[in-house]
Amino acid sequence: MKYYGYFRSSAAFRLRIAFNLKGLSPDMIPIHLTRNGGEQKTDTFRKINPQAMVPALETDGTILTQSMAILEWLEETHPQPPILPSDPIGRAKVRGFAQVIACDIHPLQNLRVLSYLRQDLKLDEEGVLAWIHRWLTDGLMACEQLLADQPETRFCFGDTPGLADICLAPQLFSAARFKVDLSDMPRLRAIQTQMDNHPAFTAAQPGAQPDAE
Amino acid sequence: MKYYGYFRSSAAFRLRIAFNLKGLSPDMIPIHLTRNGGEQKTDTFRKINPQAMVPALETDGTILTQSMAILEWLEETHPQPPILPSDPIGRAKVRGFAQVIACDIHPLQNLRVLSYLRQDLKLDEEGVLAWIHRWLTDGLMACEQLLADQPETRFCFGDTPGLADICLAPQLFSAARFKVDLSDMPRLRAIQTQMDNHPAFTAAQPGAQPDAE
Repeated sequence: MKYYGYFRSSAAFRLRIAFNLKGLSPDMIPIHLTRNGGEQKTDTFRKINPQAMVPALETDGTILTQSMAILEWLEETHPQPPILPSDPIGRAKVRGFAQVIACDIHPLQNLRVLSYLRQDLKLDEEGVLAWIHRWLTDGLMACEQLLADQPETRFCFGDTPGLADICLAPQLFSAARFKVDLSDMPRLRAIQTQMDNHPAFTAAQPGAQPDAE
Repeated sequence: MKYYGYFRSSAAFRLRIAFNLKGLSPDMIPIHLTRNGGEQKTDTFRKINPQAMVPALETDGTILTQSMAILEWLEETHPQPPILPSDPIGRAKVRGFAQVIACDIHPLQNLRVLSYLRQDLKLDEEGVLAWIHRWLTDGLMACEQLLADQPETRFCFGDTPGLADICLAPQLFSAARFKVDLSDMPRLRAIQTQMDNHPAFTAAQPGAQPDAE
């Protein structure tokens, strides 16, 4: 397997956590998202992913894109340890939590959107930060509330990490980078402490990658 | 089953197509997203979905949120007819296509984001339209290209509709509403013709809903 990623990408960070949890070590091919106008925008990389985004995963000559689809594929082809519960309702709850992050938080604060705000809309840094805070605070507060009726387990939906945690860790990393206030989110903070002490999560952190700057 | 939706919501539209394909008729509870400041923002509805968004699905007293998670749940609990292929690579391709729409197109043009652009950033209608066109054109062109190496089947990934089509139909509906130019997307236009003639898709259209205006 070949994994195309970038140390700072949240979606690539998700895959790295899953690889670590499942004991997989794909070849890592760094795609620098800002150098030379963005290596993801080259014709070579667009042949790998026409969307010009990371991550992508090559397996037996087939290229898979979109981190959430790749995570489901990993779960289907490398089921141990599982990152989804075995019952449909449990799976739907975990996927619902994960999709709050994957659909309604992360896409609003990724590189191409922030570039559009700065370059096309001429928004100043204060305005960009207000934009980021709005969607991160709304979304993470919804995550906190989705956990309110769950038992207080070590991770989001159990005592072992799963898909919800895989999405949460990069989003909390990003929240810290942008100084989002998590004081009203005690469950998320407690889970973050667990993730900060779990080797699959720490080894996946942006700063621990070979392409980190 | 109780389905909380809104005729104009893309994510609710996805669920309606899936209900129709699978022959399900949940009770429909309309949540008006703009009347009285938005019925989704009431305390009553926030108890159903703390994210204050539609759709939500109640089944045996459990509430599920996020359309992509609900679609996976529907597939697991009502497998016939399937909306995902049976092989992991095929499933990953379909999910990857669907997630381009669910993560990287739709969240950038939904109601709350457009309201922020208009009200907080004071963007004029020309600016709002340029924003919408940017993300819809980029994303739909990626969808067109993801289908380039696929056989020319009636629907995205086969001769029967599936998860990719379920996400594509509402996004193309939205593209038409905002007059996005699809002339470079012949595959998507051919698939749209199929969807426009399929009863599960036509019955799910916003204009065909009891709460349509």
